[in-house]
Amino acid sequence: MKGSSSKPPHAPSSHAGSASVEAVEEVEVRGHIIDSLILPKILDIITTGGGTFQIKRITIGQGRHDPSYALVEVRAPHEAQLQALLAEIADHGAVPTTQTDCRMVEADMNGAFPEGFYSTTNQRTEIRLDGHWYEVDLQEMDCGIVVAPAEHAARCVPMTEVSRGDRIVCGHAGVRVVPTERTKDKPTFEFMASNVSTEKPKGSAIREIARELLRNKREGGKTLLVGGPAIVHTGSGEHLCTLIREGYIHRLFAGNALATHDIEQAIFGTSLGVRLDEGQIVEAGHEHHLRSINRIRRLGGIRQAVEQGVLKSGIMYECVKNDVDYLLAGSIRDDGPLPDVITDALEAQRQMREKIRDVTFCLMIATTLHSVAVGNLLPAWVKCVCVDINPSTVIKLNDRGSFQTIGLVTDVEPFLRALVDDVHKLTATEAAK
Amino acid sequence: MKGSSSKPPHAPSSHAGSASVEAVEEVEVRGHIIDSLILPKILDIITTGGGTFQIKRITIGQGRHDPSYALVEVRAPHEAQLQALLAEIADHGAVPTTQTDCRMVEADMNGAFPEGFYSTTNQRTEIRLDGHWYEVDLQEMDCGIVVAPAEHAARCVPMTEVSRGDRIVCGHAGVRVVPTERTKDKPTFEFMASNVSTEKPKGSAIREIARELLRNKREGGKTLLVGGPAIVHTGSGEHLCTLIREGYIHRLFAGNALATHDIEQAIFGTSLGVRLDEGQIVEAGHEHHLRSINRIRRLGGIRQAVEQGVLKSGIMYECVKNDVDYLLAGSIRDDGPLPDVITDALEAQRQMREKIRDVTFCLMIATTLHSVAVGNLLPAWVKCVCVDINPSTVIKLNDRGSFQTIGLVTDVEPFLRALVDDVHKLTATEAAK
Amino acid sequence: MKGSSSKPPHAPSSHAGSASVEAVEEVEVRGHIIDSLILPKILDIITTGGGTFQIKRITIGQGRHDPSYALVEVRAPHEAQLQALLAEIADHGAVPTTQTDCRMVEADMNGAFPEGFYSTTNQRTEIRLDGHWYEVDLQEMDCGIVVAPAEHAARCVPMTEVSRGDRIVCGHAGVRVVPTERTKDKPTFEFMASNVSTEKPKGSAIREIARELLRNKREGGKTLLVGGPAIVHTGSGEHLCTLIREGYIHRLFAGNALATHDIEQAIFGTSLGVRLDEGQIVEAGHEHHLRSINRIRRLGGIRQAVEQGVLKSGIMYECVKNDVDYLLAGSIRDDGPLPDVITDALEAQRQMREKIRDVTFCLMIATTLHSVAVGNLLPAWVKCVCVDINPSTVIKLNDRGSFQTIGLVTDVEPFLRALVDDVHKLTATEAAK
Amino acid sequence: MKGSSSKPPHAPSSHAGSASVEAVEEVEVRGHIIDSLILPKILDIITTGGGTFQIKRITIGQGRHDPSYALVEVRAPHEAQLQALLAEIADHGAVPTTQTDCRMVEADMNGAFPEGFYSTTNQRTEIRLDGHWYEVDLQEMDCGIVVAPAEHAARCVPMTEVSRGDRIVCGHAGVRVVPTERTKDKPTFEFMASNVSTEKPKGSAIREIARELLRNKREGGKTLLVGGPAIVHTGSGEHLCTLIREGYIHRLFAGNALATHDIEQAIFGTSLGVRLDEGQIVEAGHEHHLRSINRIRRLGGIRQAVEQGVLKSGIMYECVKNDVDYLLAGSIRDDGPLPDVITDALEAQRQMREKIRDVTFCLMIATTLHSVAVGNLLPAWVKCVCVDINPSTVIKLNDRGSFQTIGLVTDVEPFLRALVDDVHKLTATEAAK
Repeated sequence: MKGSSSKPPHAPSSHAGSASVEAVEEVEVRGHIIDSLILPKILDIITTGGGTFQIKRITIGQGRHDPSYALVEVRAPHEAQLQALLAEIADHGAVPTTQTDCRMVEADMNGAFPEGFYSTTNQRTEIRLDGHWYEVDLQEMDCGIVVAPAEHAARCVPMTEVSRGDRIVCGHAGVRVVPTERTKDKPTFEFMASNVSTEKPKGSAIREIARELLRNKREGGKTLLVGGPAIVHTGSGEHLCTLIREGYIHRLFAGNALATHDIEQAIFGTSLGVRLDEGQIVEAGHEHHLRSINRIRRLGGIRQAVEQGVLKSGIMYECVKNDVDYLLAGSIRDDGPLPDVITDALEAQRQMREKIRDVTFCLMIATTLHSVAVGNLLPAWVKCVCVDINPSTVIKLNDRGSFQTIGLVTDVEPFLRALVDDVHKLTATEAAK
Repeated sequence: MKGSSSKPPHAPSSHAGSASVEAVEEVEVRGHIIDSLILPKILDIITTGGGTFQIKRITIGQGRHDPSYALVEVRAPHEAQLQALLAEIADHGAVPTTQTDCRMVEADMNGAFPEGFYSTTNQRTEIRLDGHWYEVDLQEMDCGIVVAPAEHAARCVPMTEVSRGDRIVCGHAGVRVVPTERTKDKPTFEFMASNVSTEKPKGSAIREIARELLRNKREGGKTLLVGGPAIVHTGSGEHLCTLIREGYIHRLFAGNALATHDIEQAIFGTSLGVRLDEGQIVEAGHEHHLRSINRIRRLGGIRQAVEQGVLKSGIMYECVKNDVDYLLAGSIRDDGPLPDVITDALEAQRQMREKIRDVTFCLMIATTLHSVAVGNLLPAWVKCVCVDINPSTVIKLNDRGSFQTIGLVTDVEPFLRALVDDVHKLTATEAAK
Repeated sequence: MKGSSSKPPHAPSSHAGSASVEAVEEVEVRGHIIDSLILPKILDIITTGGGTFQIKRITIGQGRHDPSYALVEVRAPHEAQLQALLAEIADHGAVPTTQTDCRMVEADMNGAFPEGFYSTTNQRTEIRLDGHWYEVDLQEMDCGIVVAPAEHAARCVPMTEVSRGDRIVCGHAGVRVVPTERTKDKPTFEFMASNVSTEKPKGSAIREIARELLRNKREGGKTLLVGGPAIVHTGSGEHLCTLIREGYIHRLFAGNALATHDIEQAIFGTSLGVRLDEGQIVEAGHEHHLRSINRIRRLGGIRQAVEQGVLKSGIMYECVKNDVDYLLAGSIRDDGPLPDVITDALEAQRQMREKIRDVTFCLMIATTLHSVAVGNLLPAWVKCVCVDINPSTVIKLNDRGSFQTIGLVTDVEPFLRALVDDVHKLTATEAAK
Repeated sequence: MKGSSSKPPHAPSSHAGSASVEAVEEVEVRGHIIDSLILPKILDIITTGGGTFQIKRITIGQGRHDPSYALVEVRAPHEAQLQALLAEIADHGAVPTTQTDCRMVEADMNGAFPEGFYSTTNQRTEIRLDGHWYEVDLQEMDCGIVVAPAEHAARCVPMTEVSRGDRIVCGHAGVRVVPTERTKDKPTFEFMASNVSTEKPKGSAIREIARELLRNKREGGKTLLVGGPAIVHTGSGEHLCTLIREGYIHRLFAGNALATHDIEQAIFGTSLGVRLDEGQIVEAGHEHHLRSINRIRRLGGIRQAVEQGVLKSGIMYECVKNDVDYLLAGSIRDDGPLPDVITDALEAQRQMREKIRDVTFCLMIATTLHSVAVGNLLPAWVKCVCVDINPSTVIKLNDRGSFQTIGLVTDVEPFLRALVDDVHKLTATEAAK
């Protein structure tokens, strides 16, 4: 750091007239930029991308929770490269000091953005209109931003829902990201996220999830459970039923398989042909799931089956009885499917978007497909725990940008059993106070 | 075995009048019933299911390829249990000696079978009409059988495609299964299937797959490749392109992700933001896949992008150029998707069914979702190899009934590289002869 | 089967004088040869190995528990191949009808068998001396058999313990194996073994293990626990301590790591530097395990540390206090090690052999190395459960011949927590009766 | 940062007289402290550990390769906590500005350190004697430092090799660590290390390893291969033989299993009873490995078997013929073992230490046990690549502190095949120049 320079921070005139002239821009970053590794990341992007930087001013917060500030001059060999670098570091919260309003381009067709559209992250984002910053609504990664300038309103919009004439933000100018900081007051959660190891203390992690369920219920938050059929196959359905009955789960996202095997279990006592009470294979069982689907199709749906007394127990039954809003999304490997299943992927995404708006905690259990799908839709600040016995599911979620997701590599049945136990212990302790 | 009894094999009259009277039926099994473990399996089902058996006649083939025969009397405490047992063992080829025609019930509604419908396996199946046996067409597991009695024709039909008035086979009477025998003249394939171990000789397995590709091409068979995006992420796209160009692949089933990252690679040189030639992370890359989809959407589709010179290389490009029929099935985790993607799961299944009819060899690479989906549709006699670095994919396929699938736990890139090498070596050797 | 032939079963004279003359031998097999897949296996070995067979007589047991019998004539192109085949099928219980005494050769050196030695399986084995059959003692796979003809005694002996002059059984003549049958009265155990899937009901499996612990304790059997350090890392030590204190564990085999991290946990409250109660990383912790080892070394051993009040809790403490016989076997990745560790692998094997003689149930948790080592030593009839979150450990055990081992793919902490719960519930239920 | 203070940096007198008085110390850090995340790490340790910091001076290097400097004042509630914090951050290169010589304590017994010993990392370390800094020899993690003050020499010493009277460094004063910086000029290596994903480009990673083998050979470095038996089981032995013959491998560390199955393959053509050329199971094979060991034992060792013409091919044969120094370390799961195996773990460690002194590149393939053992011994600056199909092996290595190890999750056979190919292509390219 060479001290504050008296040179004007941004001098575009100096490199007019020549394509090869060096380009320069000044950016600033705020927050836990050292603890959260934001500044190191930004500097790394600049140098890896062929640019150079000079830190013109830096103030480092003294405590864990004090914000820091850095003013950085970024240089690149030419303007195009500089813009690429700025776009890159903007996603990490580096905002040019010379600010302009965002640029909007009218969509020239339905279902696609104009070229050069701003591509969103799942971080809190603001756009600049008439010199003021406005927060973008419905934050979601891999979308565009559509603006209603008159109302000073902006929201994320997926590609497929663009209508001709929509005003779409293009370029990075006038857009700023407020990165969620990793170093929070949740050391347990932080720790679990550090590494996809199976050799970590599990008791404290499960206890922390139990606490989160309670806190969320007490504070009126909404908990979304995203679950795969292994919940039923491993005999964990009853634990989930308990959580539903006691009001800890407010939404359920799953596929045809979870619902089918749950219903198979309720009607025939088997899951994929395996009788769960004794672990014996009941051989006729391979047909049971198909007969279950067929029966529900004949009745018109899961709710009808509950109302007509055909379905008397299980996860889906508890959802109907306890007004848990469930969404079953279809996939190409489905048998049947059940009449409740949304077979069109885009329609399923649309409905999932609706239903996650007020979700404040998300528990993903034993499903890669649905977990990644929900991870794509959730903003970065919604707490998310992904439980799977297979480390690759958690690795996949992180690879795809759901950094806020905390992975717990453990086995579904004993996990859910312990979770219910811990919830009960915590409520008993609180009742005793 | 107590020798042939003079008692009539089936005496239903003897247990009329009482619910608790023992029920009895005589079945016969043919084929490699000992080598293929069919007979042990059948006897096991009977005793596990609470029945008893008496082997009344048995002839065991003397060589590996000589068929055997067994006549077995099955007893159960009451008629319902006997019928459950008979249904069970029928799937393994045990046919009652007293044969009747199959029973058909008219579908009373669209999109669902009558209760009691016969649920199909993926094995070759025959039904009895007017005393003659007819093979069922379009064999597929977890379907029903619809019969056109006038034409003596029958075919498998999925639940969703039942029309009111269809004549659906109910019960097991008059239906027989001809199990595919495991012990074949493909010891390498057999061996690989024995166990989901990573510690197996891989060279010979890959060579065997190369031979199968060549044989299938030479004999005019159709090879279907089912692939996941890891083919692109791991930098294996070029190997697959080679196989397509040289005429070894005739169908490609994949999802939005494989096509998107392949196109991203062709346009931007990255896959999920990773530049493949040097393995460096190009940070701006996380937007590339979205920009790729958007660009193709603006052009109307993959074929149009090829025709207009926007897409000039990669797997999808080679498919268009070499008339490989591709099918992209959507899922809820898709970004975009590309305009070519079939977003409705039922429509995707319908089209997959059309396209697999003449497939004789199926190579599944690095995708659980699409592999299980295709495994559900393929009859048992189509050779299938599933390659994945994660043993759980192969385990899952087998758990769901795709027993004919041979699993190879290995890594995509070096696998495909070695496969192309082996194909070239084999053709060079043959050319030299 | 062509009915009993009047031809003499074994006619060696017929192929004297020519190397290429066909060789023939008659063998018989008894037991659940169809249910247990023994006969199919034997026939398969014969034909795969280039031989042919003729089943001369067969009687199939009528119930699940009735034994069957088969008399099989085996032919091979020449005598050497026949002998190889006979050796092979002998391991599955096929015994030549023309029986001779076993052949013994004197060991010509220490620490190695004579060439041609009979190599043992882990199945119950008998040898023939003076026309009588005697059971072999200390059954263990991959050993030889040393005979004391005068006492009509024989026992398995590992290669390294052969002394010059020992009478070692050579060849297969006069040796017969009594295979343990797979189909038993433990359907749950059987079922779990069927497949290394993570999608299986776990509750019933854990309950079954709890029952086995109780049964073994009540009947005076000895339970051996073989454990890895993940028991401590995952915070499961307390559960194991409970099982030890309540008398369910009688032997503990582990390595330096389990004991070290258990002692680190007792002294510093961390395991590998991670504080278990809250899951927080205590950074200084990476030294704790080393300081723990050093402290125990300074005191002379674990027992001394307990006696001097330095070690006051944990697994090793409970072992000392409850007279559980522990054995710590060293490995090349050990730090330290603790003074109690047996650093020589052969000496460790010798002591393990001593300590497993009266073991009737073996629970292996989260250690590949020690599980395979113990699996090598245990006879096939000792019940064994191997619990690991990584399916490859279980696959490895099975690949190496420990077929009696039942694999449970689950997570250590919630597994042990559930196991202790189930043990307590079962004892409470029994007490209530 | 509040600007440089005129207050003396270290004022111990200010908090004498009271146990609860705040303690303070000034430390400095140099190097790529922001890019390499060293400074964020240090600040994080301080605040997590209950301390506070004030950055008194900071200079941030302008380029990727320019070093930075920070002067940090650390405060903690009391002296003991401060010392713990200082010890912690010292491992990351933070050195107190007020420097003293290191403190030495005489060992009071053989085989254990004095309490309070300085516990080493695998990073380059220096100690201060008579006001000068000296580098510590034989750097190895989890050791102590023994000093010969007269010669100004110091070296790492494992606990078991301490002799009474040795002068052992205690405490952190006068010890400083020079951390190896992660951001290097090896972006490919860096990238591969970022994450244990299977979905990464493999071609470029393998090519990079090939380049490293060539570079190391050309520059006279020593390459150590640490290998597991899967090299033989998967049929990859021939590829390793090629690398040995062509002079790319200079040391081989393995266990009894690799050598045994390699010799079994050479003598019987099988590995664990599997014939490698065709992938067929040769059933008699389960005895082959035992007969192989026995035969080598009868001859006295591997070298003798080569000399007497019994062993004519394979990895061990090539080692003998090409003077590759091999070390076979025993374990409790070994059969036999071969006479060359070092059965005592401490003796094996001693010999491994000798043999790694001049190793400059280490390739670990398909063995967790031996990889962790070697990872424990290697200093952080020796480049290390760990190849395994199971991600958990790589995760385990990293969890245990071998951060310099780069993990490649791939399959052994196609990996080694591709590696040999790439080596040949690179040498051909170079020859063509």
